[in-house]
Amino acid sequence: MSSARFVVVEGGDAGGKSTQIALLVARLRAVDLDVVATFEPGATPAGAIVRELLLHSKESVSPAAEALLMAADRAQHVAEIVRPALDAGQWVVSDRFVPSSLVYQGVVRGLGVDAIDAMNRLAVSAATPDVVLVLDVADDVVAARRGAPTDRLEAEGASFHAEVREAYRVLARARGWVVIDGDAAVDVVAERVWHAVEPLLAG
Amino acid sequence: MSSARFVVVEGGDAGGKSTQIALLVARLRAVDLDVVATFEPGATPAGAIVRELLLHSKESVSPAAEALLMAADRAQHVAEIVRPALDAGQWVVSDRFVPSSLVYQGVVRGLGVDAIDAMNRLAVSAATPDVVLVLDVADDVVAARRGAPTDRLEAEGASFHAEVREAYRVLARARGWVVIDGDAAVDVVAERVWHAVEPLLAG
Repeated sequence: MSSARFVVVEGGDAGGKSTQIALLVARLRAVDLDVVATFEPGATPAGAIVRELLLHSKESVSPAAEALLMAADRAQHVAEIVRPALDAGQWVVSDRFVPSSLVYQGVVRGLGVDAIDAMNRLAVSAATPDVVLVLDVADDVVAARRGAPTDRLEAEGASFHAEVREAYRVLARARGWVVIDGDAAVDVVAERVWHAVEPLLAG
Repeated sequence: MSSARFVVVEGGDAGGKSTQIALLVARLRAVDLDVVATFEPGATPAGAIVRELLLHSKESVSPAAEALLMAADRAQHVAEIVRPALDAGQWVVSDRFVPSSLVYQGVVRGLGVDAIDAMNRLAVSAATPDVVLVLDVADDVVAARRGAPTDRLEAEGASFHAEVREAYRVLARARGWVVIDGDAAVDVVAERVWHAVEPLLAG
């Protein structure tokens, strides 16, 4: 049970990702695994500066620059956290990785999946996930968690979620990501997640 | 004489790039062209934050992250400055562009020219230089401008310059960049630069 594994958890916002990651990490630790829980963007000091620029700065950032900044954050994340942990025999569970860029920048922003793949290749050559889990939650479940849309912006949020969800489902089929049905009670979903991760314990 | 042109000036540090760019821009303006003089990295507000992270921050930045940050700065530079200027019929003269990344990150840092090309493709698809000028200055001329090396670090600086120079010369042959012999008086070199740029006035 000592060999390192790299688990990536993906999906749209408000889909229960953080909760499921916390439960998964606890369960892995309960079987005596050494687990590093991490995230993108912004897990490293340099990445935190990039995240601030992307999410909170007033400066204009073009779609291509945004995608490259995400990839830069990821390259630093791999170099400083993911790769060293794997090399030390630890498990790594990351909240988001390359699939987020393929979905959000490649499909939703329309930059193209191949273009995003190309710019990420160098960033991630040192770390390939053993499994990518996509928490798939129906649009109305997410809407209910967020509360009913009260204005045009919130309604647009719902259509954005539908677009993100569809992109994850299409890419998952092409790339062998495991889609987890997230429309259930937390412990039921956690069991589904565990079912997808448990086979990695044996290898 | 109204059609926009994109001129990129390249070369190692201490090779006279800034001086030659200033003279070129003045000469273009003297024939009534509307010229935007710009540079990489850091010409945009977002790019200035990236430049600060790259050049002055204490945070660790991996070679791949550095290359991606340079490309992100470039994408924003193209979107915010280069492309709008060209669209407005202006000439753009940029101190550094993609060739710097190919030389410094691709060759000198050893990330590979193809990898750097791939990550820059999206950033620069909207702006292809009409000419790339490489100011080529002999190692001993640069060393003389900098003063004789007084310690090991300065001596390493000389070998670094030689490596950068060689990478520019090799890539210039493969990619059609114009190598300008910079080992002469300022006005002689300026004449050589003008000789390379003048044909663009006709088109």
